[in-house]
Amino acid sequence: MNTKTKSIKSLFKPYLTVKNAYKGGKSVLPKNKDQKVFKLSSNENPIGSSPLAIEAIKNSIENLHLYPDATDIRLREALEIYYNYQLTKDQFICAASGSEIIDLVIRAFVKEGDEVIVSTPCFVPYKMFSRWSGATVVDIPLFEDNYGLNMEGILNAITKKTRIIFLTSPNNPTGSYISKVELEFLLNKLPQDIVVVFDEVYWHFANAQDYTTALPYISKYPNLIAINSFSKTYGLASLRVGYSYMNEEVAAYLRQICKPFLITKLSLEGSIASLKDTDFIEKTIDTIRSEKIYLQEQFNKLEIRFYPTQANFYLINPPIPSSEFVQFLAEEGIAVRPVDNFGATGKVRISIGTREANEALIKSIRKLKVISLN
Amino acid sequence: MNTKTKSIKSLFKPYLTVKNAYKGGKSVLPKNKDQKVFKLSSNENPIGSSPLAIEAIKNSIENLHLYPDATDIRLREALEIYYNYQLTKDQFICAASGSEIIDLVIRAFVKEGDEVIVSTPCFVPYKMFSRWSGATVVDIPLFEDNYGLNMEGILNAITKKTRIIFLTSPNNPTGSYISKVELEFLLNKLPQDIVVVFDEVYWHFANAQDYTTALPYISKYPNLIAINSFSKTYGLASLRVGYSYMNEEVAAYLRQICKPFLITKLSLEGSIASLKDTDFIEKTIDTIRSEKIYLQEQFNKLEIRFYPTQANFYLINPPIPSSEFVQFLAEEGIAVRPVDNFGATGKVRISIGTREANEALIKSIRKLKVISLN
Repeated sequence: MNTKTKSIKSLFKPYLTVKNAYKGGKSVLPKNKDQKVFKLSSNENPIGSSPLAIEAIKNSIENLHLYPDATDIRLREALEIYYNYQLTKDQFICAASGSEIIDLVIRAFVKEGDEVIVSTPCFVPYKMFSRWSGATVVDIPLFEDNYGLNMEGILNAITKKTRIIFLTSPNNPTGSYISKVELEFLLNKLPQDIVVVFDEVYWHFANAQDYTTALPYISKYPNLIAINSFSKTYGLASLRVGYSYMNEEVAAYLRQICKPFLITKLSLEGSIASLKDTDFIEKTIDTIRSEKIYLQEQFNKLEIRFYPTQANFYLINPPIPSSEFVQFLAEEGIAVRPVDNFGATGKVRISIGTREANEALIKSIRKLKVISLN
Repeated sequence: MNTKTKSIKSLFKPYLTVKNAYKGGKSVLPKNKDQKVFKLSSNENPIGSSPLAIEAIKNSIENLHLYPDATDIRLREALEIYYNYQLTKDQFICAASGSEIIDLVIRAFVKEGDEVIVSTPCFVPYKMFSRWSGATVVDIPLFEDNYGLNMEGILNAITKKTRIIFLTSPNNPTGSYISKVELEFLLNKLPQDIVVVFDEVYWHFANAQDYTTALPYISKYPNLIAINSFSKTYGLASLRVGYSYMNEEVAAYLRQICKPFLITKLSLEGSIASLKDTDFIEKTIDTIRSEKIYLQEQFNKLEIRFYPTQANFYLINPPIPSSEFVQFLAEEGIAVRPVDNFGATGKVRISIGTREANEALIKSIRKLKVISLN
């Protein structure tokens, strides 16, 4: 056997190419160095982190040389209580972020050559991680006018190779959502051997009457997997914790490829404590809801075209080309997110901030309008 | 197409079975509840964590609601300095533990049906994660007498399907190592299109004259990947940070499947700070080296058969069956590790602890011997 002349590069998988790399929200560099900076680019919690979580973390900075819990069992037990025993601890899978769970589900169900359905504009990792497994990504875009789900399109796109369908509600970056009727229609029509990933990481912010999480459908549909995160409502983005819930047997299957010691000690203690912080959650939701109304009024006054949102951000049509708009705001000390790579070309996503941040945003947009008119 | 009758279970991959689940070192429950507990089961740092790391973590508990760095670039820059520019920052890949890197390498190079070579007794994740990718694990066991590497056996086991060879030095759980001559011999003989993973997470503790890390061989062998961890010498096991170094082009290939925001903020700040903590590292190495000699003397006095070690633990032949031995010590408040699942049937791995812990261990073994004689 003469393989000595071959290089390690001969093993590089053809579907792993640099163009799949993910880019997070950019840091801001305002023109004036002393200027206060407002980060409205990553949908973070505007009022900070759960105080109970911070307290738990501070109390856990000891014995850091010891391994953390080998499994997520304590967090699953806390989730069982949080969900008021509507789910058992064996129906949860926790991981070091919601993204980690997306990856886990893809690894568990997808092989090279399989198909995964997404609806752009959508969260980039669905596509990116699917390609890492050599899957073909089939895009059935949301409707252009209102970012509604093209359900007939999805059903028609199903082949024998379809393994996963990614649904997101409220959706990132559009703020649109999937109604109860729509979700029920899809779950009934979809073959039972296709995994339906229902990403509901923004669910706390939704208040539409016909909004639903995946929770009422879990017992009936073993192919349904809900994904959640501690990054948004709990204000723990820096700690990387997410969780999912599903049918118990599917959870047992997925649990086999959960790496031991996956969640750091401080992240585990923080997330467990945050689940009990109902005051902080209420305060967060109240802030987002009232600031959402404030921004809507201001956008209307400024004639900024925005999309209705069920999440903690707005997708807007900027009044000038998006790259110039983002750059202008950056120089004003305000970070917002261009979302071309999500599939929303020319649009910009703006996280709902504190009143101070939102006022700064509106003031800057007003300034821009004045400049543009002259 | 009638797939409605099929269940989601039809998608379960046949090579993902519950028996592959990993078990960490058990917690101790001493007979006497007030008894002090010594954990000598997970090769943790006996003197704690790097004080510089702890300080950095305490100073970073703010703005936890913001996403951490999207990439590992700051840690890579710190590693470049730590390695005195013998490697560039583009040759490093960091991740949330050394295990995470093992998994990353397997995902990047292995497909279902490929072969991976390990030499048992060895770290369980090599086998476990390989099976997650549907690979066949080919075991060329270490020699029984001294746990030396069977190099001829490895070379003879290579087929067209061989993708990765896992080498560990110092080896877990045996404490044995691979000499310079052996590593050079293997690297020269092995086809260049087989990945050689060189796991050196215990390298700080090695003091054999002919011990080597992978560092001197990286520029010559693009198929060589070294794995390191912050869990042992830096005392940061609870924070889950590891790193690897390799050829720059291979690193760029692997970097494509590194998830964004992979390392938590507190883990990142802690690990970066720890690299500068030369005092703590020296103190750790000194403690292990002197306690290693103490334990060796005591084992000899008690006629406990142990294997020479280059790491921070000893593998021993317990004087009574291993399960009884482990249970006896647990009741005495001392946790040690049976390593049957590593491939060292009937043997026990004991981490080198503080003098207090080691004395407690020796006292308990002496007590056991007295009981056994009566």
